[in-house]
Amino acid sequence: MSKKADAALHMIDLIRKKRDGGVLDADEIGFIVTGTASGTIPLEQLSAWLMAAWLNGLTIDETRALAVAMRDSGEKFDPSRLGKQAVDKHSTGGVGDKTSFLVAPLAAACGVAVPMISGRALGHTGGTLDKLDSIPGFRSALTLTEFEAVLGQCGAAIVSQTPTLVPADRVLYALRDRTGTVESPGLICASILSKKLAAGLNALVLDVKTGSGAFLRKRANAEYLAALMVATAEAAGTRTVALLTDMGQPLGRTAGNWIEVAECVELLRGEMPEESSDLRELSLRLAGWMIHLGGGTKTADQGYWAAAGALADGTALKLFLEMVKAQGGDLAVFDDLKVSHKPGATQELKAWKSGYVAAMDTMELGWAVQRLGAGREKAGEPVDPNAGIEFHAKRGARVEGGQPFATLYATNETMLAEPVERIKRAITFSDEPPETVPLVSHIFAREDAEAYLRDAIR
Amino acid sequence: MSKKADAALHMIDLIRKKRDGGVLDADEIGFIVTGTASGTIPLEQLSAWLMAAWLNGLTIDETRALAVAMRDSGEKFDPSRLGKQAVDKHSTGGVGDKTSFLVAPLAAACGVAVPMISGRALGHTGGTLDKLDSIPGFRSALTLTEFEAVLGQCGAAIVSQTPTLVPADRVLYALRDRTGTVESPGLICASILSKKLAAGLNALVLDVKTGSGAFLRKRANAEYLAALMVATAEAAGTRTVALLTDMGQPLGRTAGNWIEVAECVELLRGEMPEESSDLRELSLRLAGWMIHLGGGTKTADQGYWAAAGALADGTALKLFLEMVKAQGGDLAVFDDLKVSHKPGATQELKAWKSGYVAAMDTMELGWAVQRLGAGREKAGEPVDPNAGIEFHAKRGARVEGGQPFATLYATNETMLAEPVERIKRAITFSDEPPETVPLVSHIFAREDAEAYLRDAIR
Repeated sequence: MSKKADAALHMIDLIRKKRDGGVLDADEIGFIVTGTASGTIPLEQLSAWLMAAWLNGLTIDETRALAVAMRDSGEKFDPSRLGKQAVDKHSTGGVGDKTSFLVAPLAAACGVAVPMISGRALGHTGGTLDKLDSIPGFRSALTLTEFEAVLGQCGAAIVSQTPTLVPADRVLYALRDRTGTVESPGLICASILSKKLAAGLNALVLDVKTGSGAFLRKRANAEYLAALMVATAEAAGTRTVALLTDMGQPLGRTAGNWIEVAECVELLRGEMPEESSDLRELSLRLAGWMIHLGGGTKTADQGYWAAAGALADGTALKLFLEMVKAQGGDLAVFDDLKVSHKPGATQELKAWKSGYVAAMDTMELGWAVQRLGAGREKAGEPVDPNAGIEFHAKRGARVEGGQPFATLYATNETMLAEPVERIKRAITFSDEPPETVPLVSHIFAREDAEAYLRDAIR
Repeated sequence: MSKKADAALHMIDLIRKKRDGGVLDADEIGFIVTGTASGTIPLEQLSAWLMAAWLNGLTIDETRALAVAMRDSGEKFDPSRLGKQAVDKHSTGGVGDKTSFLVAPLAAACGVAVPMISGRALGHTGGTLDKLDSIPGFRSALTLTEFEAVLGQCGAAIVSQTPTLVPADRVLYALRDRTGTVESPGLICASILSKKLAAGLNALVLDVKTGSGAFLRKRANAEYLAALMVATAEAAGTRTVALLTDMGQPLGRTAGNWIEVAECVELLRGEMPEESSDLRELSLRLAGWMIHLGGGTKTADQGYWAAAGALADGTALKLFLEMVKAQGGDLAVFDDLKVSHKPGATQELKAWKSGYVAAMDTMELGWAVQRLGAGREKAGEPVDPNAGIEFHAKRGARVEGGQPFATLYATNETMLAEPVERIKRAITFSDEPPETVPLVSHIFAREDAEAYLRDAIR
């Protein structure tokens, strides 16, 4: 800590400064983060500061200082001994968003290391770790030493955050949840990046969701967050791009836990169901950027084709299975994907109208998945690995009344009724086919991001 | 609590509502206050709500609901058995502000009951209870039963807040101090009024300070607070007026603890030093309103003259001494006011320039008093009863260099230097006499206050 911070900083002054619209310097932000990790700043003072930051905003410099200070608040992972560029992908969360299971082996198959630290289901969105838990024996809570060993062996590992990594973020994250200070671009950006920076990444690909199933439904907010994360991560020394991608419908044809893993394994095995094509395409695009930023190819397009090759020749499947096995998973579960699926109750929902699927309220669909038992209301609650929804029609499809629309899997019969109603509310039919929505609508690299932020501030 | 509040209120929703600029209804405010008093709402959630309320403001209805809910959060005092109208005065705090020692006996001498619940020194302002503590044996921490007994015997009593009175305010007040959420008109108003309403007052006279020594230095802020307090208290059923009064110089000729009590006793004994004339005048104006609102006279002017009569004929002095004795004070301390003053160190500060005293930075002077030992930095610290400043010249006076300007009383010699510099910084001299500042610049009664607030919102 600098001399200045030692000398005279008081939390009450920093609360007042942010409250009155002032800008905190790196020493002041560092004081807050250090006091958060050590517990010397009481939670009530942190809460008041968080609300002032939520309402008055954080500048780009404050956001970077917060991300860097949180990165430095605990243990860090050093991937340099792997002898490869370490690259990760992070998504802002959606429904049916299972690209992690594909991009990790695809990018690793093309020579980059993918040290992926993932999260659990919250609200209407699923969690990568909850999905992996549907594989018997799979362990995501690895020590940093185990993490490094799996990475060295397979090139990819998907783990949960350790208690020693970015402890300041753990405190602030839980506090924001209780104090109504979650949805702040600066606080979200610093929280995500602190964990990515602590993982020692050389490069990062961000998947920022827009549309009806995204946390940030307004496009302008998603754009701002994407630009802010790219500019902040680049300023902290990590090569970063952000793809703005469509969450106006679930990604792929499943949303749940085991059924999402199974959908990915099918794709890795070379199956090509139409309803999974957006998942396949987005995963190749994301993996392409990871491979490119990791130095594997000269362009992201070349990375895309390298990833497509690793998918086609089975390298990615092999690597995925190796990673699951290295993390304790029982591969026998993949022998017959349908036999391994044991839902407590199943209901086929037939189309209740004829027409084109014009719009899907994806947040509503996410809540339907959660209510079937696949998600949780509060942190720490168990989830049902077998619950979820399989969609037989997606946006743009023509359906006839009575034809299968979706299959619902619940923990028990009584949990089926509400999700059925939610699905019916969520779907809009039309007589004409809807306009096509691009899967990737924009890509922010460093210069675009900085220009966007300059315009946004002007 | 209403059905609605029982059913479904969650603190997180109320934080978000206030954060997003919404208006809370009385049930929602009641939920917060009940949860504050019972401790079921965690401090971090209260802090986030306080900061949102600070930044987005409280409406008049929210302020009234907050004051009323806090009033009802604990025990209440019922003055109806006294057989008199209960009237109090409250000041927003200043330097040398000792009117309580005069208005309590003056108003009581004219037939109203004065159940006065006072506070301690904080920041640059002194505290009524700290000043009274300079009288040997004086007890301000009375039970409600003792409070009623003194009131019944003397017509006035000055006590500290009991632990059972407005417990919700005690929690919020301490929290606001730690979380940078003090200076909010709505929160200040609700805090003050909750205590006044819990004392069961029939009427209330507010002394809202403006000028360099006031907490709210900007006149518009003082006006808004005055109007808000009058409108809120009237809506809660208490007849109320607010006087906007000048705190552009210390009130009277002393600022400290014992020396302030002594100045009042001199006035009650009929002495008329020029430097005490503003204190005498303001006390009569305030007491005049108390007597009028308490039904003792038809107008406030008649109240003024009734109070002046009680001062002139010694009734007020007799009553003050009875009250001090009833609260345990040793009256021998008043035998010789100068002999009873035993400062650790004394310094006479001679005028360092010649000219008219044009302006006094009264907040700076307040801090000088505090640094001499008369005030405290943190709640709970002891204060020196003998410390303070006696001014020999006030605003508008012509002084010649070398003539006595002020006498400083400190706990020890080393504590004199900084206050001397502060006084020198605080005083501006001019060649021409400064313009006269009115002691009372405006009076808000109910209708003025409501009209002012309508204009302020438009």
